[in-house]
Amino acid sequence: MSLHNFFYLPLMLSVLMAQTADTHRLFIEDVFEETLTTQGTYKLLKKLCKNYPHRLSGSEGLEAAVQWSKTLLQDSGFERVYLQDVMVPHWERGEKESATYFNNKGKKEQLSVLALGRSVSTPETGITAEVVRVNSLLEIAKIGKKGIAGRIVFINQPFAQHFIRTFEGYSETVEIRSKGPSESAKYGALACVIRSVGTADDDYAHTGALRYENNIEQIPAAALGVKSAEKLSRALKVNPKIKLTLKINSQTFPDKLSHNVIGEITGTENPKKIITLGGHLDAWDVGEGAHDDGAGCMQSVMAVKTLLKLGYKPRNTIRVVLFTNEENGLKGGLTYAEMAKQNNEQLIFAIESDAGGFSPRSIGIKAPDSLIQKVSVWTRYFPEYTIDTIMQGGAPADLGKLNSQTGTPVANLIPDSQRYFDFHHSNADVFEAVNARELELGTASLASFVYLIDQSGL
Amino acid sequence: MSLHNFFYLPLMLSVLMAQTADTHRLFIEDVFEETLTTQGTYKLLKKLCKNYPHRLSGSEGLEAAVQWSKTLLQDSGFERVYLQDVMVPHWERGEKESATYFNNKGKKEQLSVLALGRSVSTPETGITAEVVRVNSLLEIAKIGKKGIAGRIVFINQPFAQHFIRTFEGYSETVEIRSKGPSESAKYGALACVIRSVGTADDDYAHTGALRYENNIEQIPAAALGVKSAEKLSRALKVNPKIKLTLKINSQTFPDKLSHNVIGEITGTENPKKIITLGGHLDAWDVGEGAHDDGAGCMQSVMAVKTLLKLGYKPRNTIRVVLFTNEENGLKGGLTYAEMAKQNNEQLIFAIESDAGGFSPRSIGIKAPDSLIQKVSVWTRYFPEYTIDTIMQGGAPADLGKLNSQTGTPVANLIPDSQRYFDFHHSNADVFEAVNARELELGTASLASFVYLIDQSGL
Repeated sequence: MSLHNFFYLPLMLSVLMAQTADTHRLFIEDVFEETLTTQGTYKLLKKLCKNYPHRLSGSEGLEAAVQWSKTLLQDSGFERVYLQDVMVPHWERGEKESATYFNNKGKKEQLSVLALGRSVSTPETGITAEVVRVNSLLEIAKIGKKGIAGRIVFINQPFAQHFIRTFEGYSETVEIRSKGPSESAKYGALACVIRSVGTADDDYAHTGALRYENNIEQIPAAALGVKSAEKLSRALKVNPKIKLTLKINSQTFPDKLSHNVIGEITGTENPKKIITLGGHLDAWDVGEGAHDDGAGCMQSVMAVKTLLKLGYKPRNTIRVVLFTNEENGLKGGLTYAEMAKQNNEQLIFAIESDAGGFSPRSIGIKAPDSLIQKVSVWTRYFPEYTIDTIMQGGAPADLGKLNSQTGTPVANLIPDSQRYFDFHHSNADVFEAVNARELELGTASLASFVYLIDQSGL
Repeated sequence: MSLHNFFYLPLMLSVLMAQTADTHRLFIEDVFEETLTTQGTYKLLKKLCKNYPHRLSGSEGLEAAVQWSKTLLQDSGFERVYLQDVMVPHWERGEKESATYFNNKGKKEQLSVLALGRSVSTPETGITAEVVRVNSLLEIAKIGKKGIAGRIVFINQPFAQHFIRTFEGYSETVEIRSKGPSESAKYGALACVIRSVGTADDDYAHTGALRYENNIEQIPAAALGVKSAEKLSRALKVNPKIKLTLKINSQTFPDKLSHNVIGEITGTENPKKIITLGGHLDAWDVGEGAHDDGAGCMQSVMAVKTLLKLGYKPRNTIRVVLFTNEENGLKGGLTYAEMAKQNNEQLIFAIESDAGGFSPRSIGIKAPDSLIQKVSVWTRYFPEYTIDTIMQGGAPADLGKLNSQTGTPVANLIPDSQRYFDFHHSNADVFEAVNARELELGTASLASFVYLIDQSGL
């Protein structure tokens, strides 16, 4: 190297780096402009939500959505589209459940109610019993057998609203749903009803999976709408002897075949290196699974479509995965991780969008600090008011096993969380609850981040 | 100073500063927790929206809201509550306006329509004429008198969706509303209808003020819902000879007395130094003025109530101002600025919340760079996912005159903007379009920023 070169190399390098930075910034600007103006994700989400609203594992709705998604990927420019077999649990709600009581004037009061996922059925005539109201799981043990046995436990614990991130409030509250039924059964309860784990002051009941403990009697369990929970609570204050009648007609069937839906664009430089992005296609059997997680699925498809439309040729293989059975089993994510290991795949990065179609704010990554340091500065490529922070975070549900089993760095797209639990697992989670622009900003953020990962030489 | 002191002073100072930083952080944490758990702003906003939904300048609704707000401030612990007289324009929409045409099958088609604020009336039988469709203001001049005279101009320019901040898209598009009518009249148009300046793909018509140019004929003007604009546009493609009938029954009355509503907490150290925070109480005569700007008014009131509830004693005087007549005249803000100057008031800072009750993201300040540098580091006191940025920005509508006339630094609370123009100036801007938690995060951000200004020794 001549002295001449020696002096100019750093300058040339920094010019080159500045050019790359400009290239990234300009390309990402185009990505955002493209999604905001064409609003393709929003149109796809409408089709998914209106044609396949109920997509619970084991249902015909889910498998119809699987077939539709496969065709969608084929029509969207993906080169290799296939289904990955997954055996999933099959629980059905059955006929509409009900919760009723007679008020002081002898008038029958109907409550807004949804059976919890996996709940056993009541007898056909329902369970009728006095109600013991508690405000936390701990109170159940405190009251003990004498107060609980032969009664219906009613856990009226409100959502922990004081956290800024609603996911933290959810974590603090959701154990009343997952553990409440078995905790009540330990002391002889006949059934368990909980106040819905939701943020809104309305009467939508929010379902979700319960977890029966081994060797504890499995009792029927359901969630009441917040307004209904408050109504029952007021009625019990006036008359603690009120009897509640809970009817649930659920049934559990043998496991059933479902599928992860997978589409790939082969990398031009490193076809064996794979970047995964996705969401989960299954949803509860109420509402339309719009925010949870139709949004994440359609964002993933449109993120890749947008990159292709802008003429981008990925260096690495880009793989969209629409997972099955996130809601009540996680079998889709588990199978994906197992197959990746079995096939010795080189998964260099995986990201999921499963926190609703709201304005994106950050990306949380589960990876060694050295990687986080490298990618956290990429916020500079994102437009203002999109991705402000890229930092260390937890693994998304469908990618946890992949991370623990293969060490693949995994990430969450983190949108604003304020409204998520207004809709989550309820009849309120419909297409109309999604704002087109917020949804598309998420698509653009996903596409941009996948592009940067692809460009980074990871 | 001994050598001993010389060495220890910097250490002591930095300990003291760290303690102050912790104090600020902890206090602000309490502010957010208090607003998120009690949701007092949301309750107040419901009262305002449901009891006084229509609050246009000159209306009885606005003055009833003025009286209610005065009582609210008196009941909320404000020490000095008073009204500031403001003469405001008085325009009334009158009976419901309409826009209709006969389709190719001779069937009468109704369009979703709202007269623009300040529009003159049509004759009682309406104006019926052929329609000339344009996609921008520029096209009107290009077409010229020959194509325009005797016709109704229909400006079908869509909202500029490609900006990430919708306020930029609004700025780029809104001239079709403010200037479209006079621009059309220059070339002999009989009336002007525009596609609503809104972001949603729905059929709510969005009103807002037009500006008639001097010495140009004042022609009637109205906004069509986006779906209606598209319907008319499609019909015109099939048959360019379609005649539209526009009926508007508006009336302009002499100016009327209205009021800014003002409440003060006297500063314990500097009673003459005043920090202003507020929103505007007036709203269009459709919807309920929930995001625009009932939210900003109730946030301002609750911000101060929250500081008081937490036992905070302001050093400077804190003054809440609920401005009148922001929508069609700005007379409230102008009067406030004039009175401040006339009374030689020491206004050290003023902030307005007038961009909707959405998740707060930043604060934009119009002030010298030296001040911005000082306050921009305060983001460190705010919890994650609230105020990420404090930076140089424009003046809010009601505080522009105050800034230009007195040099007072003025600021905007800047929430996420994606949904604002779905609701703005339309029947969709109702209480139900507001999310309680997003609204309360705005209240907490305002309260925290006012607290920091108060503590800063400005």
